[in-house]
Amino acid sequence: MSRLDSFIRRLEAQRACINRAVSLVAALPGPVIEVGLGNGRTFDHLRDRTGNREIFAFDRQVAAHPACVPDEAHLLLGDFRAMLAKAAASLGGKVALCHADIGSGDEAASQALGAEIAPLIDALMAPGGIVVGDQPMRAARWEELPLPAGIEPGRYFIWRVRI
Amino acid sequence: MSRLDSFIRRLEAQRACINRAVSLVAALPGPVIEVGLGNGRTFDHLRDRTGNREIFAFDRQVAAHPACVPDEAHLLLGDFRAMLAKAAASLGGKVALCHADIGSGDEAASQALGAEIAPLIDALMAPGGIVVGDQPMRAARWEELPLPAGIEPGRYFIWRVRI
Repeated sequence: MSRLDSFIRRLEAQRACINRAVSLVAALPGPVIEVGLGNGRTFDHLRDRTGNREIFAFDRQVAAHPACVPDEAHLLLGDFRAMLAKAAASLGGKVALCHADIGSGDEAASQALGAEIAPLIDALMAPGGIVVGDQPMRAARWEELPLPAGIEPGRYFIWRVRI
Repeated sequence: MSRLDSFIRRLEAQRACINRAVSLVAALPGPVIEVGLGNGRTFDHLRDRTGNREIFAFDRQVAAHPACVPDEAHLLLGDFRAMLAKAAASLGGKVALCHADIGSGDEAASQALGAEIAPLIDALMAPGGIVVGDQPMRAARWEELPLPAGIEPGRYFIWRVRI
């Protein structure tokens, strides 16, 4: 499998998992958080699929296409840990859907970051909410859900926050 | 359609067109040229699909994953126009397959670059060779071929060099 094949597979898995997550929270009110805005493609996809929901995006800096940058009130710039902790004051227990695409080229560092931010994300999540992401993460309230058909285990992850 | 949808469609179109081009030159000997190495994903794909063929990659500078960089003898760094013109001495009339992914965010500039390099690519192509690319290009010897099923016209292009 070439890097092109592998890249396409990853994007298809990402989209399928996000779409599944969006449908799983259809009946649950609450905002969406995008942890890792990056180039803004998944932010745009979430915006397209979730209609009128508020979406708050976290990143270290803005590297997204200008059309895919949220307004200032929905853009939380800085270290993920600091900004997620800070967001607890306004979003704690309210978030219906979290998408966390935080992987870099360094697998060990990406997993370590996932482990660090999982409890901070958990503090923002509403009971019954869905967390979808590219790194293995863990929280006492989270139950791992099966992936959409055709996606290799470990390529992406979906969790439901227990009620 | 979100930017994620659109990006996935473009990559799928790119892969399908490259695969079609590779199969079209199966019986034609000659090297491959990759005009625009970029991140190296399509170079890796061409390498994976074309087996033992020589692949020469052109780009302004190396921005590819280290595993997707050709050796020095197959890497032609500099302005596309200058380097394609220079390559005519060794590759003129010999190339079986050219993949040219040269688009930037600026559509007008990308199309102008395509128009400029088309005759330079043409000079390298063997009769019966295939040119596949992301910009509309034109040369007297080139005949545009239909795209693989499901690809929107204008998203990618395939030409056969008349014999």
